Amino acid sequence: MTDIAALTEAARTAAGATAAADDATRASWLRAIADDLDGAVDELVELAMAETALPDARLRGEVARTTGQLRLFADVLLEGSYLEAVLDSADPAATPPRPDLRRMLRPIGPVAVFAASNFPFAFSVAGGDTASALAVGCPVIVKAHPGHPLTSRRTAELVVAALDRLGAPGGTFALVEGFDEGLALVDSPAIQAVAFTGSLRAGRALLERCVARERPIPFYGELGSLNPVVVTPAADAARGATLAEGLAGSFQLGHGQFCTKPGLVFVPADSTLEDALPDFVGADVPKLLTEAITEGFAAGRSRAVAVPGVEVLAGDRDTATPLVLAADASTLLEHEDVLLEEVFGPATVLVRYRDPAELRTALDHLEGSLTMTLHAEPEDDVDDLVDRMTERAGRVLFSGWPTGVAVGWAQQHGGPWPATTTQFTSVGATAVRRFQRPVVYQDAPEHLLPPALRDGNPLGIPRRVDGRLALPSADGRA
Amino acid sequence: MTDIAALTEAARTAAGATAAADDATRASWLRAIADDLDGAVDELVELAMAETALPDARLRGEVARTTGQLRLFADVLLEGSYLEAVLDSADPAATPPRPDLRRMLRPIGPVAVFAASNFPFAFSVAGGDTASALAVGCPVIVKAHPGHPLTSRRTAELVVAALDRLGAPGGTFALVEGFDEGLALVDSPAIQAVAFTGSLRAGRALLERCVARERPIPFYGELGSLNPVVVTPAADAARGATLAEGLAGSFQLGHGQFCTKPGLVFVPADSTLEDALPDFVGADVPKLLTEAITEGFAAGRSRAVAVPGVEVLAGDRDTATPLVLAADASTLLEHEDVLLEEVFGPATVLVRYRDPAELRTALDHLEGSLTMTLHAEPEDDVDDLVDRMTERAGRVLFSGWPTGVAVGWAQQHGGPWPATTTQFTSVGATAVRRFQRPVVYQDAPEHLLPPALRDGNPLGIPRRVDGRLALPSADGRA
Repeated sequence: MTDIAALTEAARTAAGATAAADDATRASWLRAIADDLDGAVDELVELAMAETALPDARLRGEVARTTGQLRLFADVLLEGSYLEAVLDSADPAATPPRPDLRRMLRPIGPVAVFAASNFPFAFSVAGGDTASALAVGCPVIVKAHPGHPLTSRRTAELVVAALDRLGAPGGTFALVEGFDEGLALVDSPAIQAVAFTGSLRAGRALLERCVARERPIPFYGELGSLNPVVVTPAADAARGATLAEGLAGSFQLGHGQFCTKPGLVFVPADSTLEDALPDFVGADVPKLLTEAITEGFAAGRSRAVAVPGVEVLAGDRDTATPLVLAADASTLLEHEDVLLEEVFGPATVLVRYRDPAELRTALDHLEGSLTMTLHAEPEDDVDDLVDRMTERAGRVLFSGWPTGVAVGWAQQHGGPWPATTTQFTSVGATAVRRFQRPVVYQDAPEHLLPPALRDGNPLGIPRRVDGRLALPSADGRA
Repeated sequence: MTDIAALTEAARTAAGATAAADDATRASWLRAIADDLDGAVDELVELAMAETALPDARLRGEVARTTGQLRLFADVLLEGSYLEAVLDSADPAATPPRPDLRRMLRPIGPVAVFAASNFPFAFSVAGGDTASALAVGCPVIVKAHPGHPLTSRRTAELVVAALDRLGAPGGTFALVEGFDEGLALVDSPAIQAVAFTGSLRAGRALLERCVARERPIPFYGELGSLNPVVVTPAADAARGATLAEGLAGSFQLGHGQFCTKPGLVFVPADSTLEDALPDFVGADVPKLLTEAITEGFAAGRSRAVAVPGVEVLAGDRDTATPLVLAADASTLLEHEDVLLEEVFGPATVLVRYRDPAELRTALDHLEGSLTMTLHAEPEDDVDDLVDRMTERAGRVLFSGWPTGVAVGWAQQHGGPWPATTTQFTSVGATAVRRFQRPVVYQDAPEHLLPPALRDGNPLGIPRRVDGRLALPSADGRA
């Protein structure tokens, strides 16, 4: 077994230096990693194709997404708002006298990242969790997913080489493999947070393990999501066939192996969408990412098709083709233990509702999801539906389909349990907040303050001064 | 037993309306509560004096702090940054096409607040947890602390009356009492977060209970803190007697019943501070807040004075007077299981270090605290000490004493485990973030967006648009 104690101790030792490295330095690390991954794209894609059965174009796109993500976090560092600098002036005349307080976010310390199976780059060794933790100055130890070990090792070599070349402290990044190694990371006193993308069962076990430690630490898990879609009768009447084509594309994309796959679609009874959908569904048996996913897909299908009242609309009952099931809303509620369970793979369930009341009742039974999607027409009164969707999801879509998660400043990839375990995102600029904690300096001598908090705003970042948010040019704090 | 199911269901029902209430409306609720508490200050203080044995001036000050806190959160709402509005424009030409994404923070839903014993107003029924949750639109159910039931009930009556008068939805606020009622709140499916101020043992149990729920929820616990102080030899030589007076005032303030009481003070061997301190320590046996605290103080003293090598510098070994102990750093490390345990009440431990290396070694053994304080002279080289303090505390002080927590925009009241259980604060403007979660709207029709995210910035709040932070006057999003 890898010497986890030595690796985590090296990360702990590195943490002081990674925290002290300035924003430009850490941005240069992220950009160097991005450049090197882009430079090795052919090699990386070849390795990943062999290990994951995902196609060339998808994997190339995913490398680009991964390097774009690294570069976004570099931009986030240089912009500086991520430090959440807040300065309150002293008021010696107040009762009691008010001290000078200057607050900012600081890196939390070494982070363990559990890579996902379904994104060998974007949610893996150099994916969003790693990028956001490194960005804010946290050393990272990644536990590789066993589904793509060669891709993981090669990516890690490139990350380590880039960090070394730029003079990052030894111990800033490491890769480990193995189940027991992963658990040892979670238990290590040096590790200050765990980020995980995977199954609800494994995630729940890790969450409990993080809390059972002598010193509990935050667990950022992305665990499971049905990504319900609602189609109003008006939308179905106006463009049911188009919606069927879009849905078919979304739930079969990447063979349905996305956390944002639409797994539950509410349609009016006798919908055009339902009639049109089977024509867009493939009949081949896809090669899924891992044996565990293949087995999970088979088991999930079997449980679902066995539910009384569930019809097979498209796909084969007994072989692992893409699958569309259909059931009435009453059947969904009667068998929610099966039908509200995520089936990872190319399957979706159409749920027929008779009227708005039945739709609302069904929605009230749903747990949290990463996304919810509404297809409506301008004349529909959907305020009530939007409220219900907002309560249950982190991303609410008003057209299109939930697969495809743009990486940007505004993105939110997270939602109420079991979608994620905290009120944060794992995609987009604000993902860094998971790995930061606030520190306030009270009456500190100027030279002992971090530059972000010094008089005159030497870093030129947005800061809140005496309650007023000030952009760099207008930060009047002398 | 109170009908917890009915109360939590009422809170769940109210949550839609409290979330939909606009910022000005919720600000008016907070201000009305503040005004009514101020108006009833004589009555409230009289009740609290009888129940807590705290003096009139302290309790009046605490009511003022509580109402000032409510008004600060009203200001936070109207300023609008707390919504963290971020807008990314669509780019249909991108590959893949980028959707229009608009993110903001939304209320998490009904919150359970466990009131503290030691602040019958500021960390109790209408204290910071309640104020920050109500501020962002979360209904609140407070579990009263049994140490001051009449004060709690009267405060709750005033809160409910103010909310009713302003037309807040029924179910926005409720008070419950009793141990089992508290547990039932934590277990209620309607409750979306728990805030707690109290002991490490109780807090750990509640944390595990929050995670063991069918749907785990965040637990915001403030559990225990030693608030270590470091005095350099130069500071001791320059002003040891003054520091002794300040320390004596701080650790005996409120009879040491503050989460920020300095419980561990590192002094050079043969310090002036140590010589001077006994003269500033009282000899009376104070009346503590509750029987449990009285017993805990007695037990903690007994354990500490029994440690070989621990001297009693001031106070009585056998009666519950204020107590100052002293020990060498080597004794601290040998008996850290006892000497690094928080003793709630008027006691503090001086730890004598021989040289900087011994001081650093001792600091490396400390767990997280709410605060750490440094008393140094300008010529001292303290970079290394400041790094260690920053790693272990949420507030780092460079003069003064940790008791007294200013309520403002920059304040941070929280720190690494066991000080608090998450990377948030329970005091200051950013305390609201505990009760919010992000939601992003993708390609939403304008009229279905919350006002904070609409074109033209109708609320006039700071927003980030296409990566650039813009103040209201300059938010160019048409």
